[in-house]
Amino acid sequence: MDAIEISAASLTELQFFIGLAGTVAFSVSAVLSVVRDRADVTAAVLIGVITSIGGGTVRDVILDVPVFWAQDMSYIWTAIAASLVTFMAYPLMARRYLNMVFLFFDALATAMFAIVAVEKVWDLNFGLPVAPVLLGVLTAYGGGILRDTMLNRETVIMSRELNVLPVSLGCIAMVLVLEFAPEYRALGAVACILFVFGLRSAAIYWKLRLPE
Amino acid sequence: MDAIEISAASLTELQFFIGLAGTVAFSVSAVLSVVRDRADVTAAVLIGVITSIGGGTVRDVILDVPVFWAQDMSYIWTAIAASLVTFMAYPLMARRYLNMVFLFFDALATAMFAIVAVEKVWDLNFGLPVAPVLLGVLTAYGGGILRDTMLNRETVIMSRELNVLPVSLGCIAMVLVLEFAPEYRALGAVACILFVFGLRSAAIYWKLRLPE
Amino acid sequence: MDAIEISAASLTELQFFIGLAGTVAFSVSAVLSVVRDRADVTAAVLIGVITSIGGGTVRDVILDVPVFWAQDMSYIWTAIAASLVTFMAYPLMARRYLNMVFLFFDALATAMFAIVAVEKVWDLNFGLPVAPVLLGVLTAYGGGILRDTMLNRETVIMSRELNVLPVSLGCIAMVLVLEFAPEYRALGAVACILFVFGLRSAAIYWKLRLPE
Repeated sequence: MDAIEISAASLTELQFFIGLAGTVAFSVSAVLSVVRDRADVTAAVLIGVITSIGGGTVRDVILDVPVFWAQDMSYIWTAIAASLVTFMAYPLMARRYLNMVFLFFDALATAMFAIVAVEKVWDLNFGLPVAPVLLGVLTAYGGGILRDTMLNRETVIMSRELNVLPVSLGCIAMVLVLEFAPEYRALGAVACILFVFGLRSAAIYWKLRLPE
Repeated sequence: MDAIEISAASLTELQFFIGLAGTVAFSVSAVLSVVRDRADVTAAVLIGVITSIGGGTVRDVILDVPVFWAQDMSYIWTAIAASLVTFMAYPLMARRYLNMVFLFFDALATAMFAIVAVEKVWDLNFGLPVAPVLLGVLTAYGGGILRDTMLNRETVIMSRELNVLPVSLGCIAMVLVLEFAPEYRALGAVACILFVFGLRSAAIYWKLRLPE
Repeated sequence: MDAIEISAASLTELQFFIGLAGTVAFSVSAVLSVVRDRADVTAAVLIGVITSIGGGTVRDVILDVPVFWAQDMSYIWTAIAASLVTFMAYPLMARRYLNMVFLFFDALATAMFAIVAVEKVWDLNFGLPVAPVLLGVLTAYGGGILRDTMLNRETVIMSRELNVLPVSLGCIAMVLVLEFAPEYRALGAVACILFVFGLRSAAIYWKLRLPE
């Protein structure tokens, strides 16, 4: 049991760094995708910021709690810095093998954002047991949906790749952990994140698609 | 007068069932429209849920009151169940005459959502007398607009069919009832719902369009 | 110093009239653009209202303060009246030289909305120093982005015209004024508005575009 006993403080700290890492991943992949379409630096930063903090913003507005990035400015500074660096180092970062790295990095961020959101909604005792799953998916994909909608691109929802399904399953699993095994919360969160990341990575690597 | 005297309790109950029926109608018609585009089950449920609770969510966020579906989970369970049933029974439900039934069912739900929203905004004394009309229209069409925007479809706003106009007129009529004849509130609500439903049904049946 | 000393009351009054003028400008240009696409009167009013109050609504929801148009109904009545007049007087208002006038009027409204929003966010001490800039841009362009997204048009974000860049620079300048020279707040606001308006006007007149 000792190995999985994580103090509340270090858990919060862990969630903080998970959040920052996810913010970097989302900003980088968003900026890479718009620089290809010849965005200028303002558009790149705006898209990077909206993609990385948009989903959590919609979640917090629905929860009626203060938006997370106004509480702690680290997220927004991180998003701006990551967007600027990506914009300026584009020729370096757009290389094929790096692209693949960012794709997996993005999948990990998606998994982390979703599971951390499930925990936040659960702790607020908000619309249990469905809202944590719904808002988990919304936090993970909301920023990307906002970006794609503003750019008139196809959103993730109708893509037949394994996207929303694994994230939904991971969020449901996390709700089950919180309901039936709250003592394994930290371990459960890590397991759910790895589960979602694993499924997404497999979908990316083998180009898995749902049967019609 | 006895026949139209409805107690506050039974009125609340009536609104509740109206809400659930509208949720079913919106979920079913939304899922029918995406299954045609080969959505998988997760996308179908997500689209069904967003379409049926999206408009009311935006309304509640603007009103700064708790979102209705987190207060009473019936709405979201109903949306999920209706979406799942529609997805699985698609070959049965996509038949031509049933399609027509759902279209009218959808028109009834639109009318009900709008008028019930007018009453909610009125009772909160929020931005009278314009906000009830604006948020009535937004509640009725907001979920569909979110869905169509996310799917890159044309939204209802620029369609020349009689859509937003009858709903706006019904909301204005309801505001007049609440202002000048509050004692006929229940009767007025039913009349306004039937008025909107009648105009929408006529528009659907005779394919009425506004002159250019 | 006397000339720039403006009492708090007259400053509030000035902001109020700036807000109304901006509302007219945004409604008129939005309605002109949809009447071309043969919108009916309801769609025209809805688009006019959403374009002119949409950005400020999103800002207020994120700030978690009451939406501005529910506090003071002047804005919404102004938006409705301007939209109706534009719709009915379209043949008159769509003339080429008037179109140019509205374009500059719209640029002025954009500048005013952005800078007034920076001041509002600053006064709420919300997410300083980044949130005022971000929400300034969002207030100025949010309504137009909502409109263009609902109409499936290209949004301002990826346009290569000088749009978001001058507004961002103006918002940053205003934040610097509020931080380092708060005693010149009124003068600074006017200067920042003229700066943004000047850059936008130059971009419109000379069709300036960012290099790729």
